[in-house]
Order: sequence, then structure tokens, then C-alpha cells
Amino acid sequence: MAESASSKGLTYRDAGVDIDAAERALADSKRAIRATFGPRVLADVGSFGGLFRADGLGTEPVLVATADGVGTKIRIAASVGRFDSVGRCLLQHCVNDALVQGAEPLFFLDYIGVGQLDPAMVAQAIQGVALACQDHGVALLGGETAEMPGVYPVGEFDLVGTLVGVVEREHLLDGSRVRPGDALIGLPSDGLHTNGYSLARRIVEQRFGADDYHAQFPGAEGASCADVLLRAHLCYLDPLRPLLRDPALHAMAHITGGGVGGNLPRVLAGHSAEVARSAVPPQNVFTQLVAAGEVPEDEAWRAFNMGVGMILAVDAAHGPRVLATLKENAQAAFEMGQVIATDREGEAEVRWLD
Amino acid sequence: MAESASSKGLTYRDAGVDIDAAERALADSKRAIRATFGPRVLADVGSFGGLFRADGLGTEPVLVATADGVGTKIRIAASVGRFDSVGRCLLQHCVNDALVQGAEPLFFLDYIGVGQLDPAMVAQAIQGVALACQDHGVALLGGETAEMPGVYPVGEFDLVGTLVGVVEREHLLDGSRVRPGDALIGLPSDGLHTNGYSLARRIVEQRFGADDYHAQFPGAEGASCADVLLRAHLCYLDPLRPLLRDPALHAMAHITGGGVGGNLPRVLAGHSAEVARSAVPPQNVFTQLVAAGEVPEDEAWRAFNMGVGMILAVDAAHGPRVLATLKENAQAAFEMGQVIATDREGEAEVRWLD
Repeated sequence: MAESASSKGLTYRDAGVDIDAAERALADSKRAIRATFGPRVLADVGSFGGLFRADGLGTEPVLVATADGVGTKIRIAASVGRFDSVGRCLLQHCVNDALVQGAEPLFFLDYIGVGQLDPAMVAQAIQGVALACQDHGVALLGGETAEMPGVYPVGEFDLVGTLVGVVEREHLLDGSRVRPGDALIGLPSDGLHTNGYSLARRIVEQRFGADDYHAQFPGAEGASCADVLLRAHLCYLDPLRPLLRDPALHAMAHITGGGVGGNLPRVLAGHSAEVARSAVPPQNVFTQLVAAGEVPEDEAWRAFNMGVGMILAVDAAHGPRVLATLKENAQAAFEMGQVIATDREGEAEVRWLD
Repeated sequence: MAESASSKGLTYRDAGVDIDAAERALADSKRAIRATFGPRVLADVGSFGGLFRADGLGTEPVLVATADGVGTKIRIAASVGRFDSVGRCLLQHCVNDALVQGAEPLFFLDYIGVGQLDPAMVAQAIQGVALACQDHGVALLGGETAEMPGVYPVGEFDLVGTLVGVVEREHLLDGSRVRPGDALIGLPSDGLHTNGYSLARRIVEQRFGADDYHAQFPGAEGASCADVLLRAHLCYLDPLRPLLRDPALHAMAHITGGGVGGNLPRVLAGHSAEVARSAVPPQNVFTQLVAAGEVPEDEAWRAFNMGVGMILAVDAAHGPRVLATLKENAQAAFEMGQVIATDREGEAEVRWLD
């Protein structure tokens, strides 16, 4: 980056940081951010901290907080210049993480780190977050955009978020209700959600012979690789809300990095699970990636969700009722196994039935 | 990165992501993280969301939430392999951001993005955050470490955090008490804190002729550039706690990116300020950077805190009492100007008296 021609003195802009560009990006997004504010938000955009009234949240309210990013899905967004869907993915991913402990989301804060700040790009990402917040009744309470030349190469960026939700203590899903024999019910994902992208990108770039992400995705009529791989992470809040206070719901696992095997045991309080992989409806995106990458089956189930985005552990006697409730809410679901006792001296694990 | 030799099939590790390394880094830090848990934390490390009991937080509790990073200070940490102080900087920066609205901190979540995950480095950064959390009574409630080859070059990383604090609504500092005539009291910073690093690094690298950050910093006896530039962001919670419910305290501004001119007007509710730059005790680090970089004075005051880390607006009649209270708490302080009316049709601003 050249120093300014008129002077030998260094300025912040010479050093690669454009404070005005950050302020422009924020100004363009203020309307969308304010639209997420409910009656609990007390301060406007731009204060040092977002303010959220916490009176009357419940009798024994428990805050549930979770931080996450969207992984290298962001590199596909950057390569095709489409930044809104990753904002939605991030928010919906975090809502699911709080949801599995029984929580309704309250507020969200985002962070964008970039190598060189493009106000239009940043505004698109923030607005993607803000629209998703509005859809789910979440206040976009704060955020930060940081221009960090060198930490990020020009054209690269990271998008990080923290969500805080609330659950009444008696309805907290903490694994204590889980019992061997509980039925496992899976909810379909819509593609990769936000995990396994480093592997998926490598397969697309090396094995599909796709020059870029505008090329057609094999077997996906009329859809480019970008279309398929930027699909938004599904949010399970609306279809699962009617079950949150149902005593038959014992636990939920959000299937993210590590796949079914890495996530399901996290919520089973030491119990194990047996799972039929064949019960999960296959999706073209996984079939194509696994075939082209010659990815070993166990590795595929560790890197990808393979078609299941959320797993519920429910009292087996109430399984049919839970399935009926999900159907009433237009949520597809499938039985995929059961909770089993963990071997004495053994570790909690997922045993594949096929 | 080479594909594994034994097979043509791709694995996650081939794609540059080592899930086991992330788990090792977390395992090494669990003891330090658990040490931050107070009686309000309900879940252990590794659950989908951190759980924090929110009953009994006050009569009309207001949550104050803030997200931030440490900017390109992180590149100096990376270049000398010292990762604990940036963790402390991040936490203390965020505590200050909540503090200026009157809030005591409750809990924190961190995010580390890296190009290639070095478990020892990540553990050092997390432990830096955890130790600072413990010092200030903050629960380290959650976090995420993401290995993102390509988004971050090998050796680079970003460290991001979100803090949630609480303030009783009647003690909220929202600018409503600020009046023209209020005295402005500054608290010294200790060097750059976490702002202006892109400019500072450029000066060190181009103008000091320093090969690396192990070279001596001019005028700082026995201290390397890394020692001077990695100094921790001061936390003002302990010295300011006795003033948080004092009606004479009208507002506080944390001097971060944008300097005094960019931050002070954010808390003055539309009023302006006049400030004597000469009232701020000069620090060698700024004197040297500004001279070597031939940084214009206004630019220096926009990029750096220039020696003032926090500014209090207080009822002028109580100024001497506030100064005495700070002195009793071993907190240095100096009068540096006053709040003034903003020109009709004008924008809130900082007018320099010198």
C-alpha cells in the first residue's frame, strides 16, 4: 500500500485501515439492525454496549450463551461475492445451539474481521444477520467490524457471533432425563449447514474440475456449486417450540462439526446410542461429494451431517406422539435408533447399526 | 498440503482441519476455564451452550453486552509467539466497554480463528483469557476454536470475545445525566491498549529499522518492541467500582479505536466537549511512534489513545471528591476539560483547547 504522496507522515489509512469505510458500512445497516429491536432493547446502535432489559424473564431463568463462526463456508461466499446467506447461517446455527438446551433466543452480537474493508460487502453480511434475527425474534444487540490487514488476506473475512437465550430452569434440557431405550428422532438438514467446508471445497476444487463455484453442481439441476453449498443452515426453533416444555423430550443434539458421532454423545449424559445410518434420507450433495472425493464412510460421517441436522432423544412410549406433533408443524422427521447403556469401563459412543 | 499417501480418498485432515488438535487445546485449558465458574454456572465445558443462572440479578436488571477483538495487536503476539497477554487484553477491553454503562461483568465467550491449529498456542490464548476472567470475577462460559485454512494464513489468527454484564436500571449510565459544565476527568492508559496497531506496526517495521519485535523500543530501557506493544489493556473495573452508584458520575467513555475524538461524544447525549490535550501525561511509546512516523497530531489523536484510557464526565461541584476517591483507590487521574453545549445545527464534537 503506497504512502500518501503529499507527505512523508504516516496516517492510519496508509497503514491499511479506513475508519470511514467501517462507519459507512454501519450506517447502511442501521435500519435493518433497529428493526430487530424489541421492547427489551434500551440503547441505539453505536453505544459501547447493547442494553437488554432482563426483568421478568422467568421464575428461575437460566441464560444459555453460545459463540460460533460459519467455518470456511465463508470462503465460498467471498469467492462469489454473496454475503447475506452466511449471515443467516451464523444466526440460525447459534439459535439451534441454544435451542438444544431448551432455550428461546434473546439477543445476538456479531463480529466481522476483514483484510480490506468493502462497505457494501460488510453491509450485506450484517443485513443477512439482521434479517435472520428479525425472522426469529432475536435482537441484534451489538457488533464489531475490524479491518485487519495481514491477519486476513485481501478478499478474505471471518464472521463470528454470540447468541444469548433463556430457558426456565425446570425446562432446561441438560441430559438428566435421558434413559436407555429412548427413541432417537432425526430432522433432515438442508445440505452441509456450516460444517465440513474445508473438505467439501477441496473436493469441488480438485475433483469436480469446477473452475469456480459458478459451475453446475453434479446432479443438482440448474443449481451452481455456490447455490448448493451456500444454502442456509436450517433453524429448528419454530418446529420444535411446541415440544420445548414437553416432558417426553429428553435431549436434543445439533449436528455440527464432528457429525452425528461427535455431537449426539454430548447430550446423552454418559449414555451411548445405536444409530442406523440408512434411516437418514440421502441427499444428492453428500452422495456427490463422498463419491467424487472417495471419502471413507466413517470419515464422511465425521466431517458432514450427512442429511441429519438435529436429533431428538424422546421417551420411546411417546415417540409416535412426538412424530405426529412434528408432522403437524410441517417438520419432516425419521426414527433413526435408540439410546443404549454405555459399556462398563467404556466411553459414551455412537454404534452404527449399518 | 499433501493428500495421505496410502489412499486416494480425501479426509478432513487432508483438507487442513485437525479436529483432534482442537480437542487437545480445549482439554489442556479445561482446568483454567472451570476455575472461572462461580455458583451461577450450571453446565461443564463442552455443552452446546454455557448455562448461567439469571435469577436474583436485581430489581430491574439490564444486561449490557459487547463484542470485540484485539485488532492487529494479535500480529505482534503471533510474531513473537506470546499469546497470553492478548487474551487478557481482550477480556479487559470488553469489561471496560460494559463498565462505561455502569455494568459489572458476568460472563464471557471467546472465539479463536486460526489458519493452522497449534494446540499449545491456542491453549495459551484461552488460558490468558481465563486467568483475566478469574481476576475480575467473570465466568468464561463458552467459546469456539475454528481452524480455517485460507481464511487465515498459516501463523495468523484472530481472537474475538463477547462479554455480558449487568447493571441495575436506576444506575445505568446512558448519558441522560450529562450537562454542559460537567468536568472531564481522564485516567491514564498503559500504552496502546488494543488500538492503532496497524499504524504502530508500520512505524516499527518501516521507521525504527527494527528487524523484529525483539529489538529494543526507543527510549524504553531494557524493553523490546514486543514488551512495549503487548502490554495489557488496563482494566478500570476495580478503581471505578466505588463510583458506579455515585449520582455525581454522569458518563464514562472508553478510549478505543477513534481515540478521544471518536469515543467521548458517544456518551455525551448530543453535548460536546472541550479538551486540553496537554493535560494528558505524555507516554514515551506515543512520543516515539508519532515522531518516527511523522504522524500529524490530529491523526495521532484519532489512531491512538495518546495516554488516556478512560474519561469520566462528573458533576463539576463533585469533581474534587471524585478525584479524591480515585486517589484513595490508587488510581491516577487528571482533569482534562469540560462538557460544553453543542452549536445549534452543529454536530456533537470534541474541541481541542491546545
